Amino acid sequence: MALIVQKYGGSSVGSLDRIRHVADKVYHTRQQGHDVVVVVSAMYGETERLIQLINALSQFPDPREFDVIVSTGEQVSMGLLSMALQAKNCPARSFTGPQIGIQTDHVHTKARILKVDTDLIKRELGLGRVVIIAGFQGVTPEGDITTLGRGGSDTSAVAVAIALKADECQIFTDVDGVYTTDPHLIKEARLLPFISFEEMLEMASLGAKVLQMRSVELASKHNMPIRVLSTFSDGLGTLVTFENKTMHNHLVSGIAFSSQEAIISILGLPRKIGIEGLILSKVSEANIEIDMISQSASVQDTIDFTFTVQRRECPLALKVIEQLANELGALSVNTNAKVAKLSLVGIGMRSHTGVASTMFQSLGAIGIPIHMITTSEIKISVIVDEADLNRGVKAVHQAFELDKVPTHIKSLPFE
Amino acid sequence: MALIVQKYGGSSVGSLDRIRHVADKVYHTRQQGHDVVVVVSAMYGETERLIQLINALSQFPDPREFDVIVSTGEQVSMGLLSMALQAKNCPARSFTGPQIGIQTDHVHTKARILKVDTDLIKRELGLGRVVIIAGFQGVTPEGDITTLGRGGSDTSAVAVAIALKADECQIFTDVDGVYTTDPHLIKEARLLPFISFEEMLEMASLGAKVLQMRSVELASKHNMPIRVLSTFSDGLGTLVTFENKTMHNHLVSGIAFSSQEAIISILGLPRKIGIEGLILSKVSEANIEIDMISQSASVQDTIDFTFTVQRRECPLALKVIEQLANELGALSVNTNAKVAKLSLVGIGMRSHTGVASTMFQSLGAIGIPIHMITTSEIKISVIVDEADLNRGVKAVHQAFELDKVPTHIKSLPFE
Repeated sequence: MALIVQKYGGSSVGSLDRIRHVADKVYHTRQQGHDVVVVVSAMYGETERLIQLINALSQFPDPREFDVIVSTGEQVSMGLLSMALQAKNCPARSFTGPQIGIQTDHVHTKARILKVDTDLIKRELGLGRVVIIAGFQGVTPEGDITTLGRGGSDTSAVAVAIALKADECQIFTDVDGVYTTDPHLIKEARLLPFISFEEMLEMASLGAKVLQMRSVELASKHNMPIRVLSTFSDGLGTLVTFENKTMHNHLVSGIAFSSQEAIISILGLPRKIGIEGLILSKVSEANIEIDMISQSASVQDTIDFTFTVQRRECPLALKVIEQLANELGALSVNTNAKVAKLSLVGIGMRSHTGVASTMFQSLGAIGIPIHMITTSEIKISVIVDEADLNRGVKAVHQAFELDKVPTHIKSLPFE
Repeated sequence: MALIVQKYGGSSVGSLDRIRHVADKVYHTRQQGHDVVVVVSAMYGETERLIQLINALSQFPDPREFDVIVSTGEQVSMGLLSMALQAKNCPARSFTGPQIGIQTDHVHTKARILKVDTDLIKRELGLGRVVIIAGFQGVTPEGDITTLGRGGSDTSAVAVAIALKADECQIFTDVDGVYTTDPHLIKEARLLPFISFEEMLEMASLGAKVLQMRSVELASKHNMPIRVLSTFSDGLGTLVTFENKTMHNHLVSGIAFSSQEAIISILGLPRKIGIEGLILSKVSEANIEIDMISQSASVQDTIDFTFTVQRRECPLALKVIEQLANELGALSVNTNAKVAKLSLVGIGMRSHTGVASTMFQSLGAIGIPIHMITTSEIKISVIVDEADLNRGVKAVHQAFELDKVPTHIKSLPFE
């Protein structure tokens, strides 16, 4: 008997039929003798509906009230799932983030979980109930409702799993697991049975859209195994754990990409100690997340500073940067909002050379210009024109033979 | 400067435009220097939408989960109203029932308020904010969300007003106030500037649809003046307070009626001490509310026991009663689900005779048969065929000259 935390996303609970289906899956796990804690998202479309109401009412909605409103989506779906389980004679009880004690900081709409109380969960599990918890939400020490930002339900699930010392955190979604790259784009894309936390972090942060980055960070920090699997088909999905020796058999695990990128450059910035920190702090004050950063010397005593942001945040970032560039005496600010990012990720990269070279050559061979490059120990990212993205992914996928199945150990979930 | 609690119902916050309009009204009151606490219902239609989801999922929904789900309606509208006030630069903050500390018993879907914490409300008012509270909901000592039943937001508002020792509890609705009878039915119906708690209680419990009965009981018990007024037009509405001498100038205040009634009779029940209590306890165990009761001896040693229930509860009540009648050896059970109730209400009735006689004569004169009669100190109710209801109300309204304006003192709200 294991203690399993299962998380079901918005499309998994998108209709009453789907909620019944999720209840089947939860009940099945329960029937195998496991204790089950379920974290649910809002029904697909519900959060959008609430945000539309908010936006129609207020141009600059108060973040506290924003959270009050959007957190109701999960409250509805958790209650419905609990009823669906009870209809199968499976004892269940639902709780909001504040009720169960998911304690967060005060940063409304993007709160961070500080602590998860486990007393109530343990008591309910002890009474033989499935415990259903609203994802995406928590409570400040003063009792205000907070939300964790888009994809926050993954983080809720992982945080609950860690607090309970669960055996596994299963993230049910509408994909079978983590693929070598997007299977909608590249038909040769292959499901990975295992992936390391580090690789998953790189995949998530680079737009692989399967798991929220913060949840993987959290799981990695506390060594909580995450299994990504489909609500709509059987199968073992992908187990995300610490790297093991079998993982080194392959050079690269996959290709992540994101088309919604924008690149901003400050050119001819007078060289000054601490100027990079100043730029970043200004952008960060406007609550804009910077992704890639690269800096290079141009003419004497000046530098070029380039970074990427999500495309929708580009206008605001540009406003901040143009004012700052003016104050700092930069020559000019350039921007290109029609770019995409393509990243090669693999733990095997550490012990092998030539990966970057193979990647750049495969892009160059089909005439794709590279606008920006950053590298880490297990990842190489390039910025290309958005129009070149699909061709580029295909070429790199082929160059590293990602469609070919490596030898691996079959992953075993708790059943 | 006064402390005013305002309650806005579902149709008052039925759209974003209406929410903006409510914000105008609240802001207007605030601008006059008053402290304002607002209690809101869910947007019109939202509670129904949620109940439909629940019913589609579960035939016998768990009451605890039912409350978890339907309580979200008010949470959305309170947040939206807070944003609408902030958009007018009026500081505001919204709170759920659990957050503010509306403590209730454990009877889910029909909970009773035990206590309202005022510390947080007072602190927020002290900071110059309008405090917005979700109506219809509260929390058990264990932290479970409860709802108060249909119309419960009125009770929330009155309970908050009492706890705060507010100067007045204003119930904004889609009618101008309390009329002598339904103005949609009788064009001569007249707005009452004052009505006593007792009269209002009889009006509400008999289907006047303006205020929830429990809220009037509560206000009466704690002597909290309630003003019923329209969200959509200016005007002073109707002030509900303790009786005063001016009220005795009129014999009757109004005519309440309800068309959704059903009558059930147990005939030939063997006379036995305590049998009436047994019948009522069985019906009450099934959570069915009985309204009128009348009992009369028929043949020797047997009694006929007749009562009315809301029509929608008739099938369930009948099931309970038929089984019981069988056990108790009654002759038969009769039912008529196509009846309506017509009630004449007036504090002046106490000191005058002949009111019942005038009422029965006015009905008899146009050939309307009366199926059942009950009386109290300030009310006479009759059950008639549903088809006779409208004609009956018109005849009684005319017989008591309710269309003629009596002399009265103009009521003054806080402005």
